[in-house]
Amino acid sequence: MELLKSTLASIKPADSKAKEDAKEKWDGLVKPLGSLGTLEELAIKIAGITGKVENKINKKVIVVMASDNGVFEENITCTPQIITTLLTEGMVQGITGVAALAKFANADLVTVDIGLNSDYGHEKVINKKIAYGTKNFTKGPAMTYEEAIKSIEVGIEIGDKLFSEGYDAVGTGELGMGNTTTSAAVLSVFSGLDVSITCGKGAGVTEEQYNNKKNTVLKGIEVNKPNKEDPIDVLAKVGGFDIGGMCGLFLSGAKNKIPVVIDGFISSAAALIAVKLNPDVKDYLIPSHLSDEPGARYMLDQLELNPMLNMKMRLGEGSGCPLAFQIVDAALYTQENMGTFQQATIDSSVLVDIRED
Amino acid sequence: MELLKSTLASIKPADSKAKEDAKEKWDGLVKPLGSLGTLEELAIKIAGITGKVENKINKKVIVVMASDNGVFEENITCTPQIITTLLTEGMVQGITGVAALAKFANADLVTVDIGLNSDYGHEKVINKKIAYGTKNFTKGPAMTYEEAIKSIEVGIEIGDKLFSEGYDAVGTGELGMGNTTTSAAVLSVFSGLDVSITCGKGAGVTEEQYNNKKNTVLKGIEVNKPNKEDPIDVLAKVGGFDIGGMCGLFLSGAKNKIPVVIDGFISSAAALIAVKLNPDVKDYLIPSHLSDEPGARYMLDQLELNPMLNMKMRLGEGSGCPLAFQIVDAALYTQENMGTFQQATIDSSVLVDIRED
Repeated sequence: MELLKSTLASIKPADSKAKEDAKEKWDGLVKPLGSLGTLEELAIKIAGITGKVENKINKKVIVVMASDNGVFEENITCTPQIITTLLTEGMVQGITGVAALAKFANADLVTVDIGLNSDYGHEKVINKKIAYGTKNFTKGPAMTYEEAIKSIEVGIEIGDKLFSEGYDAVGTGELGMGNTTTSAAVLSVFSGLDVSITCGKGAGVTEEQYNNKKNTVLKGIEVNKPNKEDPIDVLAKVGGFDIGGMCGLFLSGAKNKIPVVIDGFISSAAALIAVKLNPDVKDYLIPSHLSDEPGARYMLDQLELNPMLNMKMRLGEGSGCPLAFQIVDAALYTQENMGTFQQATIDSSVLVDIRED
Repeated sequence: MELLKSTLASIKPADSKAKEDAKEKWDGLVKPLGSLGTLEELAIKIAGITGKVENKINKKVIVVMASDNGVFEENITCTPQIITTLLTEGMVQGITGVAALAKFANADLVTVDIGLNSDYGHEKVINKKIAYGTKNFTKGPAMTYEEAIKSIEVGIEIGDKLFSEGYDAVGTGELGMGNTTTSAAVLSVFSGLDVSITCGKGAGVTEEQYNNKKNTVLKGIEVNKPNKEDPIDVLAKVGGFDIGGMCGLFLSGAKNKIPVVIDGFISSAAALIAVKLNPDVKDYLIPSHLSDEPGARYMLDQLELNPMLNMKMRLGEGSGCPLAFQIVDAALYTQENMGTFQQATIDSSVLVDIRED
């Protein structure tokens, strides 16, 4: 609890002076004001995060929080639970979607067992297992309040360690069969939106499984009555260890003044909890893509963030983060390398009088 | 006319067998079917373009067609016409938005004077000037039918030359004060949409200038009565040399089986004319971003294409293309570097029985 407390207390809003200076820089470049849209906004946001006008991201990492969810036993998905563990092994082998994309974007990949329901272990996977998956939240809380705090603190610890090693941008990823269900529950609690909106019907899911999913979320909220004024209570009762771990990454990023990239639906559920814990966290969040998961746009609405990519992706794992890294790099590079109108001068004798025929 | 004719005759649809094979490859990768969305679609589309399942783009170029527009004299924009020429010099100096972004994405930049209203010239700018800007289309056609064909053939020639030099992807850019007005006219002719929808009010534009812009488009269509069944007639009467030149690039890409990236509103007007000339061109088009120019979404609707980026950009110049190149590269890399489910095996003794407590 101490780590979470001290982290929350040390998070400060972004540096508004650096943002103003960066905006001034952009406004002097050879283009109509604001015409590079999100590229300008990204570079200005990063300036606010680091407190410097000129920035370059040198060392990127994506952290994948792997864990299982007790609600899996409600028959809510068409994928076996063992896939969470198999894909964790896939991260080690470097064959998953996010592994390929991270390599492409020159980002490192760190995988954490924060609650796999297996005894799988590998030296390349950080073992922070809190339990063999959460409990089935249709029958009681997914985890204890203490476990919820612990899951967040795992994320903070890992973030703090990575940032001390020189990583200056982090992406948030996860593995966990059933975690669109837990994320839908988090969204329904905070937004009050109906489960038919927050629960998506994934590919291959039967009508029965989709109904089970919606009923599971409804029952989880009914049985546990999460207190939306207490984000940790929400995480404990209807969340997951992966969501808690990613929440900790967002908090650590904000504390250390490092941009943290949101991936899709589950990652944004974690971001929402982080922002509920401390609204200043929002200054450190970089949204990436609009997931094809139907609830994703409502989650981002809650966060008041607009994604820059619209790629109909619904893989999770953090797979949107490497694409966002590339765009952030492009934004920072452009701010540094464009010229001003003053530079684009020409010998006026070459000009015909352009206002006459 | 011969070059245009022979080009149109030699354009063939994409290779459907290569697309099927690429899809099969994706479907065997360690992820839910289709869960990488547009990344999968892009790689499959490129397979159809090249006829090969595995692809890598080695040499990229962005071609900027610079020209002026006669309708400028209707007081439709807040920017002086000389800026078209100044920004052409900016391309040479490498200080424009697209120049910075192209450098970031490791793409070359080629600038073409296809109709600047100045005697500016530079050894680094390809001189293909057709005239000192088009004519004011509120008083008659913007250009002759022959000039329209010539502008397209300039694009084809430049594309053919670049592809013979080994470029295997091209982005389309432009410079030309007043070219959102010409593009809006092209869109209104083909779609029948009202000028209040197709004409956007750019930043800094006064209410009077915005009204002038809409009236200019209305008058251009009324005076010239473009025949929407004849895309060259539309280009000649209410288009611009830049639009014609980019149209030629799209045609050359399709002929040479090279992907061509669409930038924003003006570039997509050129793509629309190319597709009207030969519908198979569509197989070779890669949309990039949804421009902040209000008509952009309607232009893409006409093309039945979905942009992958939503960055509120409205600079033009081809500035969306380098960002799209990066995503295409990511898609091709991911297809090649992800593994299959068969590869992600683990020793089953480490597993607890996951379906029981």
